[in-house]
Amino acid sequence: MKFCSHCAAAVSHKIPPGDSLPRYVCDHCQTIHYQNPRMVVGCIPQWEDKILMCRRAIEPRYGLWTLPAGYMENGETLADGAARETMEEACARVKVGPLYTVYNIPHVNQVYLLFRAQLLDLNFRPGTESLETQLMTEAEIPWEHIAFATIRETLKHFFADRARQQFELHVGTIERPAQPMKIEPR
Amino acid sequence: MKFCSHCAAAVSHKIPPGDSLPRYVCDHCQTIHYQNPRMVVGCIPQWEDKILMCRRAIEPRYGLWTLPAGYMENGETLADGAARETMEEACARVKVGPLYTVYNIPHVNQVYLLFRAQLLDLNFRPGTESLETQLMTEAEIPWEHIAFATIRETLKHFFADRARQQFELHVGTIERPAQPMKIEPR
Repeated sequence: MKFCSHCAAAVSHKIPPGDSLPRYVCDHCQTIHYQNPRMVVGCIPQWEDKILMCRRAIEPRYGLWTLPAGYMENGETLADGAARETMEEACARVKVGPLYTVYNIPHVNQVYLLFRAQLLDLNFRPGTESLETQLMTEAEIPWEHIAFATIRETLKHFFADRARQQFELHVGTIERPAQPMKIEPR
Repeated sequence: MKFCSHCAAAVSHKIPPGDSLPRYVCDHCQTIHYQNPRMVVGCIPQWEDKILMCRRAIEPRYGLWTLPAGYMENGETLADGAARETMEEACARVKVGPLYTVYNIPHVNQVYLLFRAQLLDLNFRPGTESLETQLMTEAEIPWEHIAFATIRETLKHFFADRARQQFELHVGTIERPAQPMKIEPR
């Protein structure tokens, strides 16, 4: 951020009076431009013993597999956002169920919130952000080709909870990897 | 938003190619300025059979009672943010426990995420954003003078769950009130 979105004057990065953190502050109109973490919302669409996975057609992690998820939009609820992302990425209709995993990713200013969901029919197909959409059993999950740690952890919890027939909320934090991950698309 | 924060040119509000919602898009450098909901994080600080409430010294809802909560900051976890807000508003040290309530407020683009927490000592006092801080039993809660619906709902769930000795996650949505609320500070 270099300029004020209200008046187009230059901004400075400084601690405003009474605050404790540096913010972008307009040198002219004094508007403080706060920046806050964003929510990524999505779901685990279930159909019988399978779940619906998407292979990414966009960066980051082009070619790797994920659950339908994306940035929550203004004016919607978490569950609205999870259903919308599932429609956008997999053209799939779901009934969104309980909140299932919540992951902090502080080094990228994100919080993932993923729900369990029921797929309502089999008329899914790749949206513009997906190369493929596929129903997978646990044995078919491509564990070495999952796009994000949040999704891998969510899937692990899901299959473990399903095996013991008791689902509970999981809350966790994904730390910055010691080395950048090198995962090649298959 | 009137101007691009990258190049100071004017922005237009329009649907970018491949998108489905209107965004602020720079007429010069084409940067898309997304706007997303914000998270409000906080906690219910418990001490024996009491909880710690704060009376607001700032607008909105000046003079009304609330739980310590505020906007989550970049670089922190949900629980980090809940503890920081409790320190800022009540100068109180807490051990943050389980996530307890999650409220969508789509008409103001917010999601509240409130945790249960244990107050670690009695050295609390009003921070700059609070007029008073007070430990309250259930009977002492000023139900007619609570600042926000999210806080009122969270407190109701807390005392009901405590009575049956079984706490569980509550997820809900606060709809826009049919008429603006008129609550006077006491």
